[in-house]
Amino acid sequence: MESVHRTHQASKCTKEIVGQKVTLNGWVQKRRDLGGLIFIDLRDRSGIVQVVFNPEISPEAVRVAEKVRSEYVLSVTGKIVARSPETVNPKMATGEVEVQCEKVHIFNPAKTPPFMIQDQAEIDEAVRLKYRYLDLRRPKMQQTLFIRHRAMQVVRRFLDEHGFIEMETPMLTKSTPEGARDYLVPSRVQKGSFYALPQSPQLFKQLFMVAGMERYFQFARCFRDEDLRADRQPEFTQIDIEASFLPPETFLSMMEEMVSRLFKETIGAEVKTPFERLTYREAMNRFGSDKPDLRFGMELIDLSEVLRQTSFKVFAGTIAGGGQVKAINVKGCAGWSRKEIDHWGKVAVQLGAKGLAWLAFKEDGVKGSVSKFLSEQEITEISKATQAKTGDLLFFVADQAKVVANVLGELRLRIAKELKLINQNQFKFAWITEFPLLEYSEEDGRYYAMHHPFTMPMEEDIPLLRTEPGKVRAKAYDMVLNGYEIGGGSQRIYQREVQELMFDALGISMQEAKEKFGFLLEAFEYGAPPHGGIAFGFDRIVMLLCGHSNMRECIAFPKTASASCLLTEAPSPVDEKQLEELNICLREPQKTV
Amino acid sequence: MESVHRTHQASKCTKEIVGQKVTLNGWVQKRRDLGGLIFIDLRDRSGIVQVVFNPEISPEAVRVAEKVRSEYVLSVTGKIVARSPETVNPKMATGEVEVQCEKVHIFNPAKTPPFMIQDQAEIDEAVRLKYRYLDLRRPKMQQTLFIRHRAMQVVRRFLDEHGFIEMETPMLTKSTPEGARDYLVPSRVQKGSFYALPQSPQLFKQLFMVAGMERYFQFARCFRDEDLRADRQPEFTQIDIEASFLPPETFLSMMEEMVSRLFKETIGAEVKTPFERLTYREAMNRFGSDKPDLRFGMELIDLSEVLRQTSFKVFAGTIAGGGQVKAINVKGCAGWSRKEIDHWGKVAVQLGAKGLAWLAFKEDGVKGSVSKFLSEQEITEISKATQAKTGDLLFFVADQAKVVANVLGELRLRIAKELKLINQNQFKFAWITEFPLLEYSEEDGRYYAMHHPFTMPMEEDIPLLRTEPGKVRAKAYDMVLNGYEIGGGSQRIYQREVQELMFDALGISMQEAKEKFGFLLEAFEYGAPPHGGIAFGFDRIVMLLCGHSNMRECIAFPKTASASCLLTEAPSPVDEKQLEELNICLREPQKTV
Repeated sequence: MESVHRTHQASKCTKEIVGQKVTLNGWVQKRRDLGGLIFIDLRDRSGIVQVVFNPEISPEAVRVAEKVRSEYVLSVTGKIVARSPETVNPKMATGEVEVQCEKVHIFNPAKTPPFMIQDQAEIDEAVRLKYRYLDLRRPKMQQTLFIRHRAMQVVRRFLDEHGFIEMETPMLTKSTPEGARDYLVPSRVQKGSFYALPQSPQLFKQLFMVAGMERYFQFARCFRDEDLRADRQPEFTQIDIEASFLPPETFLSMMEEMVSRLFKETIGAEVKTPFERLTYREAMNRFGSDKPDLRFGMELIDLSEVLRQTSFKVFAGTIAGGGQVKAINVKGCAGWSRKEIDHWGKVAVQLGAKGLAWLAFKEDGVKGSVSKFLSEQEITEISKATQAKTGDLLFFVADQAKVVANVLGELRLRIAKELKLINQNQFKFAWITEFPLLEYSEEDGRYYAMHHPFTMPMEEDIPLLRTEPGKVRAKAYDMVLNGYEIGGGSQRIYQREVQELMFDALGISMQEAKEKFGFLLEAFEYGAPPHGGIAFGFDRIVMLLCGHSNMRECIAFPKTASASCLLTEAPSPVDEKQLEELNICLREPQKTV
Repeated sequence: MESVHRTHQASKCTKEIVGQKVTLNGWVQKRRDLGGLIFIDLRDRSGIVQVVFNPEISPEAVRVAEKVRSEYVLSVTGKIVARSPETVNPKMATGEVEVQCEKVHIFNPAKTPPFMIQDQAEIDEAVRLKYRYLDLRRPKMQQTLFIRHRAMQVVRRFLDEHGFIEMETPMLTKSTPEGARDYLVPSRVQKGSFYALPQSPQLFKQLFMVAGMERYFQFARCFRDEDLRADRQPEFTQIDIEASFLPPETFLSMMEEMVSRLFKETIGAEVKTPFERLTYREAMNRFGSDKPDLRFGMELIDLSEVLRQTSFKVFAGTIAGGGQVKAINVKGCAGWSRKEIDHWGKVAVQLGAKGLAWLAFKEDGVKGSVSKFLSEQEITEISKATQAKTGDLLFFVADQAKVVANVLGELRLRIAKELKLINQNQFKFAWITEFPLLEYSEEDGRYYAMHHPFTMPMEEDIPLLRTEPGKVRAKAYDMVLNGYEIGGGSQRIYQREVQELMFDALGISMQEAKEKFGFLLEAFEYGAPPHGGIAFGFDRIVMLLCGHSNMRECIAFPKTASASCLLTEAPSPVDEKQLEELNICLREPQKTV
C-alpha cells in the first residue's frame, strides 16, 4: 500500500499544479472509451477529476483500465496536464485539467451498484436505505454529513469558549412515569428490573446544576418509542444545554449568537441578531401557530370586534358564543376560480373548520360566499382591517379560537407554498415566549405541564396557580426557524415553595411527586442554584441547514416509519438463550430463532 | 435575579482588583463567627473566596448571614479589600483579599449534606454515588470533569484538523452473534424482535469507509452486559476512529501526535513521540504482558538455555517438556526475610505457578530455595544473564510459557508497586504490534478471532492461514500506557479472497458468515477501500490523565459492580402495561409494580 499512497485529493487537481505528478485514490464514477483512449472520472470525498489512459504513455495502465468499471476502487499515479481549450469542462471544478495516468492499481473491484452514484438519480427510498453505504457516496449525502460534522464542531467551540462543559449522562437509566413511551432494557443482573433509554437528559442536567457545574452541554442521543412521522426518529440527537446564575436575557442572547455563528460557519448564511420575539399569545393570534413561518405575511386578522353586531347569524352567533371570526388576505387572488376556492374550502373542513367563507375584491365589486350577508359598512371595515385592495381574496373562519388558529394557520402555510411566496434561501428566526405553563386535559379532568413539571411560572402569575392555573404563563421559550421549532427550554423551578404550588396545580401530592421525581426533589434540598436551559433538535437544524425536507436525509443510518433499519435489519429475533438470561419471555413466542 | 447577576467568579477575586465592587454567586463552603464579624467561604466552580460581613458596613447583610449555613446558595455583592498581612491565607489562591459584603441574597437554603464538600473527606463510595450531585461539588471531581471536557475538545479539534468527520451511528441496532453479551431492547412495533445496544460501532465505521467518507471519528457510547470489574462499566465511551487509504505508519504517527497533544493540552504533560514499539512476542517475553508498564525495569529473563542441562530436575524437566524457566531480578532485596519471600511465593501460587524459586545474592554467598540444586557454573551464568549483583534477589518460575508470563508479569507489577519503583508522574506510551490473529479455544476445539474477523493478517503470514493458523500475526496494534491498554485497532480485510481464507480458518462457512455479517460482506462487494482504525477507551484515558485508579471517578453518573445507579435506582421494576405493549413477560413475574 505504501507505494500507492495518495498525494492529492481529486478536487486539488487544478490548473495551479499542472505538470505535477500526483497519486489519487478513489472510486470510478464512470469510464468512457474514446478513440483508443480510456477516460475515467475518479471520485473521492472531495470531488471528481478526469483520468486519461493513453497507450502511448502506459500500455500497461491501459490494460488495467480496460477491466475497470463503475465503483471500482483505484489508485492512479500520473501527471496533471491542462486540457485543450475545446475539451475543458466548465461544469467540473477540475474541468481544466486531467490526470495522464502512468500507473494504476485496482484496490478492489465492484459489482454493479443497484443505482447510479449521483445526486440526480430518483431512487426508491427503501433501496437507498438498504444500500445506505452506496447512497452515502452521493455528493449531496456526503455534503450533508460534512455540514453536520461542521455544525457539531462550531457549536462545541462556541460553548467551550463560553465556559460550558461537555458532560456525558447515562444511556441506561430509569424509566420516567410521565412523558413519551420509554424504550426499555431488561437487566440481567437484577432480574425483573429494567433500564430505560433516556428521552432527554433533563433530570441529569438539572443535577449537574445542583452539583455546581454551572454550565453544561452535551450532544445527547435521546429515545422516544412513539409512532413516527416524517420528521421524527426513534433515536435523535439534541444539543442539550443548561446554565446556572445566568439571567434569562443573557442566556437567550448567547443562544442567538451561537445559532448565528452556526449558520455562518457551516453554510455562510448571515443571521441577524437579536431575534424577533413573540409571545405565545401573539404568535397564536397573528399566525395561528406557536412555530410561525415569518418569511411571509398573510397574517390572521381578528374581525370579531368588527363583526360582533353583524346581522349575519353564523358570524354573530360564533362571536357571541365566545368564538372568533378571523380572516387571511390572499393578496392578488380575487380572480381564483370557483374550483380553486372550493378546493381550499375542502382543505379547511378537513382541518376542522365548519366551512370557509370568502370575499373577493374584484374590479366590479365585492363577491363571495358572505358578500350578501354583510352590510356595506361591514365590508368597508373588513377591507380596512385586512388591508384588502382590489384584486385581493379574503378567507374567513368563524369558530372557537383554537379551531380558527389551527385552520387559518395551516391554510396560510399551504397557500403560501402553493403561491411560492416563501423565499427558500431566507432564515427567519424568532423566540416564542410566555408559553402557558399548564394544559388542561378534558379527558383526564386535570392539568398537565406543557413543558415539564420543573418549568418556572412567571413571577407575576404565581398567585394564579391556585386560582386560574390555565392562565399561568411559564418562563419557557422556543426558538423557531421558518415554521419549525428548533429548540425549546425554560427557566427551572429551584424553590421548594414554588415547586409545591406547581405539584398542587397538577394534582400531584408531594408524596406522589417524591415517588416519581424523588432524587431530583431531594437534590433540590441541598442547595439548588437558579438555573435554566434549552435543548435544540440537532437533526432538524441540520435538515434546515442543508435544505432537506426529511430528517432521514440528515442521519447517516436512519430508521423507517416502522422503526426498522433496512440495512442491518434491526430489530430482529434473538436467541432464546439470550431471553432466558434476561428472565423474560415473549407473549407470542413463535418469533425466536 | 437581574439585580444579583454575577460579575466575577470567586477565583478572579485577587489583589489586582482590590477596590472593585463585585457580585459573586455560589455555595457556602463554611461560616465562622469571630469578634462580631461573620466570615463565609464562598465556593463556585472556579474556587473559593472569603466574604466578610461587618455590622459597620451593612447590618442588614449581617442579619441575613446569621441564617446562612453550609451549602446555602448565595449572591454576594461587595468590595474587594486587601487582607491585613497577618490574615493573608497563603493556601488559598484568593487568600490575599476578601469581599466586604454590602448586600447578600439567599437563592436557596440547604439541608446539612451527608458529607463535607471537600477532597480530604473519606466517604463511603455508596454514599457518594447516592448523593452524586453533592459528590460532584468536590473540587477533585469537578476538576476531573473539566479535564474530561478539555480532553474531548482537544481530540475533536485534532481530528477535525486532520480531515476526520464526526459521524453518529445508531444506538438501536442489531444483535451481534459473536463478542460480549448484548443489552437488548424489545421492539414494540415488531413484536418478538429486539434491538441491541452497540458493543462498538465497528460495522458502521467500516460501512462509512465503504461509503467513501474516508476519515471518520466519533465519541461513541458502547455497551457490554458483562460482569463488572473495577475498570469496567456497562456503558463506556470510546474514541472511535477509522480511515481509508492511509498507510498504517502514517496513521499510527497521527494517533501518537493526537495523544501527545491530548496530554499536553489537558494536564501539561510532555509526551515524546514516536512511541516505543514492541511486538506482541517481545512484550510477552520481556514483560509477561501485552500491556507492559514500561516505567520500570525488572524484566523477565529467559534462563531456559542456561538451564537446559541442569541437574535440577524441576527446571530441566519443565524445559524438556516445552516449558521455560524465567526469572526477575528484584534489585537490592536480597535481605528480605523468609516471611516476605514466602508471601510472594503464595502470591505466585495464587496466580497459577506451581511454586516460586528464589536466589538471594548476599554478602556471604548465594542463598535460596534452589541454591543447592544449581551448580556454581549455572549460578554464575544466571547472575550474568540477570545482571544480579550482591544484594539482589531473583525469583524464578518454571512452567509453560503462558503461565510463566502470567505469574512473573504480575509479580513484576506488584513488587514494583510495593517497592515504589514507579514514578507516578511519568507517562510511558508504547505500541504493541503483530498480535496473533487467532486464538485457539481448547474448549470449543476451534480458532476465534483475537480482535474481530475483519482484522487483516500480515501479508507474509497469509499462507499460514491454511497450515498453521495459530502462527498468523495480525496487522493489529494496541496503544498502551503505564500498564493499561488505552486503545486498540487494526487494518481491516478489504479483499474478498483474504476474507474467505479468514472465515475458513475460523471454521465458518461463507453461508454462515453471510448470515452473521451479511450486510457488511455485501457492502464489501461494491468497492471497499483499504482501511483501518482504532478505538480508544476514553474513560480509561481520563482516569490516567487525572491520576485516578478507578474508572467510576471519571464518569459523572457511573454504575456499581451490579450495574446499578445508586442515585436514580436504575434498573427498576416497570409497569405491567409497558411489558404488555412490548409483548414480553417476566419469567419470575413477582417483581413488576
